[in-house]
Amino acid sequence: MSLLVTGSIGIDGVTSPHGQAEEVLGGSSVYFSFSATQFVPVRFVGAVGEDFPPAFRDLLASRDIDLAGLEVRKGSKTFRWTGRYVGDMAQAETLTLDLNVLGEAPPKVPAEFTDSEVVFLANTHPALQRAMLAQVKAPRLSVCDTIDHWIANERTELVETLKAVDGVFINDAEVRQLTGTTNLVTAGKEILELGPRFIVVKKGEHGVLLVTRDGVTAVPAYPHEHVKDPTGAGDSFAGGMLGYLAAEGSFDTAALRRALVRGTVTASFAIEDFSLRRMVDVTRAEIDARVAELLDMLRID
Amino acid sequence: MSLLVTGSIGIDGVTSPHGQAEEVLGGSSVYFSFSATQFVPVRFVGAVGEDFPPAFRDLLASRDIDLAGLEVRKGSKTFRWTGRYVGDMAQAETLTLDLNVLGEAPPKVPAEFTDSEVVFLANTHPALQRAMLAQVKAPRLSVCDTIDHWIANERTELVETLKAVDGVFINDAEVRQLTGTTNLVTAGKEILELGPRFIVVKKGEHGVLLVTRDGVTAVPAYPHEHVKDPTGAGDSFAGGMLGYLAAEGSFDTAALRRALVRGTVTASFAIEDFSLRRMVDVTRAEIDARVAELLDMLRID
Repeated sequence: MSLLVTGSIGIDGVTSPHGQAEEVLGGSSVYFSFSATQFVPVRFVGAVGEDFPPAFRDLLASRDIDLAGLEVRKGSKTFRWTGRYVGDMAQAETLTLDLNVLGEAPPKVPAEFTDSEVVFLANTHPALQRAMLAQVKAPRLSVCDTIDHWIANERTELVETLKAVDGVFINDAEVRQLTGTTNLVTAGKEILELGPRFIVVKKGEHGVLLVTRDGVTAVPAYPHEHVKDPTGAGDSFAGGMLGYLAAEGSFDTAALRRALVRGTVTASFAIEDFSLRRMVDVTRAEIDARVAELLDMLRID
Repeated sequence: MSLLVTGSIGIDGVTSPHGQAEEVLGGSSVYFSFSATQFVPVRFVGAVGEDFPPAFRDLLASRDIDLAGLEVRKGSKTFRWTGRYVGDMAQAETLTLDLNVLGEAPPKVPAEFTDSEVVFLANTHPALQRAMLAQVKAPRLSVCDTIDHWIANERTELVETLKAVDGVFINDAEVRQLTGTTNLVTAGKEILELGPRFIVVKKGEHGVLLVTRDGVTAVPAYPHEHVKDPTGAGDSFAGGMLGYLAAEGSFDTAALRRALVRGTVTASFAIEDFSLRRMVDVTRAEIDARVAELLDMLRID
C-alpha cells in the first residue's frame, strides 16, 4: 500500500554523553522515512528553506522516497533544533528551536499523493494535522503523533484530531497529561473512546504499549548497549511500524502486534549513531536478523 | 527442591491513591513466601518481637510455610514500616521506620534447614546475608536482593556478597548506582564479572531485564489496570521466580527465562490489593491462566 508522511525536516545539533553532531539532517518525517523505506516506498510532504543543504536532499533522494511533496521555499529558512542528552538520555533538553518554515503556511499534498492509503501525521499543530489529512481522499489507515505542548495549549483541536485518525502515537507522560489518568492501560483505553482504533504508548528505553479494543500488548525495547543519540527514536518506531503495515496491507490486531516489533527494531538502529548515520547503511537483512532475535527473546515456554 | 528464605517480617502501614491499610502484615520474606508457595513449600527464617500478632502467625502457618526458623523474641519488637505512594506509585516514600528486632542479632538457620538447595537472601546488611548463606551447607542456587543504602554505605561488604551468590535482584536505579554505568545491559554485565551467573534488573511497571552470560531477556510487566499497593512487588517477583525454579529443579537460562514470567505474574497479583490480601486467595489456576495470557501476549509472529 502507498504510504504518505508529513512532518518536519530539520537541521539539528545534538550533544550526548557519546559525542556531538552539528548541522546534521533531522526532523520527524525524515526519521520516519528512513525506517519506513525498509518496507515500502514513502511519499514525502514537507517544507524547507532555501538554506536546505543539497547534500541533505541528495541523502533523501538516495532512499526510496518520492520527494514530489518537498517544497523548497525561497526566502524561507529550514527548521532548526539543537538539544542535549545527559545521564540515561531519557529526555532531550532543547537548547535552541527555530521554527522558521514550520511557522509558515503548511505544505500542500501533491495531486499524485492524494490517493495515499496509509498516512502518518508527524507531530505538529493538531488543526494542521487534520488539514493535511483532509487533502488525502480515502486513507485506509491514518495515524498521528503529538506532544505535550498541544495537550497543554490546544486540547480542543487535539481531541478533534484524535477523533479523525485511526491510530495515535503518544508517550507515557503525555498520555497521563491528556487523560489525567496515571495508569497507562486505563489512560490508553480512555483515548480509544474518542475514536482511534489503537494507541501506541511510547516509553523510551522501556518499550511500548499497544492498546486496542482487543486488549493490551507490551513490548520491551531492544536491550541495547550502544545508544549514542535517541533523537528520532519515536518517529523511527512509527516508520518501522507503519512501513511494515503498509507492506502487509492489513491492520488487524495481529498485524499491529507484528508491526510493533518491526518499529522496535528500526528505532533500535536509529539510536545507534547521531542523526541518520546508522540508518543510511543499515540493511534489510540486519533489520530482519534483529527482528528474529527480538521475537526469539519474547518467545518463552 | 527445598527453598529457604530469610528476610524481614514486618507490621506495615501503607497509603496509596487507592486507599490505606494500617497494622498489616508485610516484610520481604513474607511477600516472597506467599508467591513461592504457589510452586513449592518454603522454609522460613526470620525474627519478630513478642508483639507479633497471633493472627499474622496463623496467616503464615496457613500457607505451605515451615515456620521452624521463625524466632519470636521476648522483650523485642517486630520491625515496623509505614509508607506512602502518590501519583504513578513508582516509588514508596518511607514515613516511619522502626528496625526493632532487625537491629538485633540475626536469626539462626535451624539444623533441619541447613540442607536447603535454593536460598533467597532478602535485603539486609550484606555481611549478614553472607552469614546466613554460610549456615546452609551446599546450596545449589543462592540469590540475594539489595538496596541503595548498602550500595552507598557498605559497598565493600556488598561486593563480597555478590561474589558469593549465583543471582542478584536489583532495581534500575541501584544497578546504575552500583556500577556508575547508565546503560542497564552494560551495568548488568559488569555485575556478572563479580561472580553471579545472573542479574535481574527490576524496573517496576516497566518489567525486568535478565542479564546472563548467554545474553539479555527483557520481559514487560503484566499490563495492569488495578494496582492498589506496590509494596512487596519485588519480593513477590523473587518468590514466584525462585519458587518456580525450585519446582523445576533446573537453573539454565531457558529455565530462568520461564521463571521471569512466573515472577511477573505473582508480582502482578501481589500489587492488586494492600498487604497480602490478594495473595491469600489467589489460586494456582489463576496464576497459570495469567502466565498463559502473558506468554500469549509475548508470542508474536
